[in-house]
Amino acid sequence: MQATDSSTGDARPGTDGTVGRLDVVAVGSALVDVLTNASADLLERVGLTKGTMTLVDLQSAARVYREMGPATEVSGGSAANTAVGVAMLGGRAGYVGKVAADELGEVFVHDIGAAGVELGVLAPPNVPADPSSDRATGRCLVIVTEDGERTMATHLGVASTLGPEDLDEELVSRARVVYLEGYLWDVEVAKAAMRRAIEVAHASGALVAITVSDPFCVRRHQREFLELLRSDVDVLFANEEEALLLFGSPGFDAALSAAEETGLLTAVTRGPAGSVVVGCADPIFVRAEPVERVVDTTGAGDLYAAGFLYGLTHGQDPEQCARLGGLCAAEVISHIGARPEVDLRELTS
Amino acid sequence: MQATDSSTGDARPGTDGTVGRLDVVAVGSALVDVLTNASADLLERVGLTKGTMTLVDLQSAARVYREMGPATEVSGGSAANTAVGVAMLGGRAGYVGKVAADELGEVFVHDIGAAGVELGVLAPPNVPADPSSDRATGRCLVIVTEDGERTMATHLGVASTLGPEDLDEELVSRARVVYLEGYLWDVEVAKAAMRRAIEVAHASGALVAITVSDPFCVRRHQREFLELLRSDVDVLFANEEEALLLFGSPGFDAALSAAEETGLLTAVTRGPAGSVVVGCADPIFVRAEPVERVVDTTGAGDLYAAGFLYGLTHGQDPEQCARLGGLCAAEVISHIGARPEVDLRELTS
Repeated sequence: MQATDSSTGDARPGTDGTVGRLDVVAVGSALVDVLTNASADLLERVGLTKGTMTLVDLQSAARVYREMGPATEVSGGSAANTAVGVAMLGGRAGYVGKVAADELGEVFVHDIGAAGVELGVLAPPNVPADPSSDRATGRCLVIVTEDGERTMATHLGVASTLGPEDLDEELVSRARVVYLEGYLWDVEVAKAAMRRAIEVAHASGALVAITVSDPFCVRRHQREFLELLRSDVDVLFANEEEALLLFGSPGFDAALSAAEETGLLTAVTRGPAGSVVVGCADPIFVRAEPVERVVDTTGAGDLYAAGFLYGLTHGQDPEQCARLGGLCAAEVISHIGARPEVDLRELTS
Repeated sequence: MQATDSSTGDARPGTDGTVGRLDVVAVGSALVDVLTNASADLLERVGLTKGTMTLVDLQSAARVYREMGPATEVSGGSAANTAVGVAMLGGRAGYVGKVAADELGEVFVHDIGAAGVELGVLAPPNVPADPSSDRATGRCLVIVTEDGERTMATHLGVASTLGPEDLDEELVSRARVVYLEGYLWDVEVAKAAMRRAIEVAHASGALVAITVSDPFCVRRHQREFLELLRSDVDVLFANEEEALLLFGSPGFDAALSAAEETGLLTAVTRGPAGSVVVGCADPIFVRAEPVERVVDTTGAGDLYAAGFLYGLTHGQDPEQCARLGGLCAAEVISHIGARPEVDLRELTS
């Protein structure tokens, strides 16, 4: 099912009142964020590129952690943040991811459940922990610099073993929108899980939404992402840099045209410049919500997607969706951590 | 050594430049705080008394955690917060506590080390983890209500096994002030560790400072605390309620007189009303620092002690000590978590 028409009809599943129907089921890498404030020197010292996510092995993660100052642990994971955002907006959200039976796994499961997100029967914690190997819950070391920008070093741990057998198909089949994070394309076995999730979504009449996650992620998987867009996806999220890389466009306007040609409903975020939606009647430009002080941009894209998808599953038009996405992003960048701290439901009124 | 004279001479170790000399070595229960915002309803539902710390077993901790919303994990532990505060003020601090070789233990050790606090050779992680028993790193479930007040349910885990054999005597003997938390009197085996720490302090010419920690803690150990004060302690920290309970006084003035009679340098904190110091020339009343919004009072007493002890070990008079304590407390109650978020060194200038 492609959201190719100029209205948002396809993108608005009817409120059929089906018992157990979920607005959004997100599939992604389950991670606990380990957040610290630091100067840009630290990034240089540990060899990370500002504003991006780098996958690191256990040793490298330990090395970066040693260099980091005192930190705060908060549940994260891109798609999980989006699921939590949908739930905190008052929507019904589900999540599929994989943690180990260790303390951070317990933290992740507690936090996402306490936010009101439904976890499938095959959901974590389903892997015995072994801290001496990679069989521990994944963690994302997040270094927040003075400008509020975040730089991430992710050790996936057991999230790197998320396979089709971990996919709770019953949960996925109850979704109106199945939301996939591009990061999962970094994990060979997870691709099969993604493809299976897409099949289940198509079989149950759900929309498939995807975020391409990160510029480096787009570089790594450009060809596969473009293939997916041709046949399997209805809604696309990317930021400006990612959109340029994805479509190999020389400039923003060209990237927008390329996005429009895909026929997908595409939301391109531009940080303080707001967002643009194409694939509907006319391109829609929405200004960013003013933020008093940008404290930590971790989760900005995730929460934009949450607001957008909540709107999409609640009868809002693309402009309203983009506006709600912007409101949610503005909330999450005004404090440390990638999950909302206030009741988002007031944003929907 | 008792700080009985009217000057603060005894309370100001000379700046003898001894290599490896530490300003403050704190001994306490090593805990990771699990913080959440909630309404007072939750406290009633889980049977906790607002503003106090309740010790709970593994099952009860699990029950409270289940009822809690999404949370944030930050290293805590009363005396550990104080040690971190001293280090962040630019002082030299050490810490003795006990964690397990699990993920939260790793978090605790990382955070206190990254703050610049020296851990003794017998310091954590020294206990193999066993999450199915009490052999896990201790945690403190902190429920922050709308008024910024915090209510705590603590499961001590391996912190409940801190004994004299865990005391790094070399580290303790390098202290100018050995700082003990009253909470440790809840742990039978820890009392022996405390008594040994006091012996080492006396032998090396260090001052002994103690906080009585919590009103319920005072109720449980009033007699033992009063005995300690008679012979083994130089500096006492208590809040108003604790001071009244400790001395069995009918009112604040009577409690101050009783504190004065002990001959100790005593700092009594009164929340927004500031603090009072007795045991020096004249009682000193110091106003609280104004705080724009009290977000979370967790750590207020711990950071007051940090500022006070930093002052005491850096040639400041009691009034300056109390003022610096108040400044540190004001910083920590203006955000979530019990450890400072800004560079405290600017407070000392």
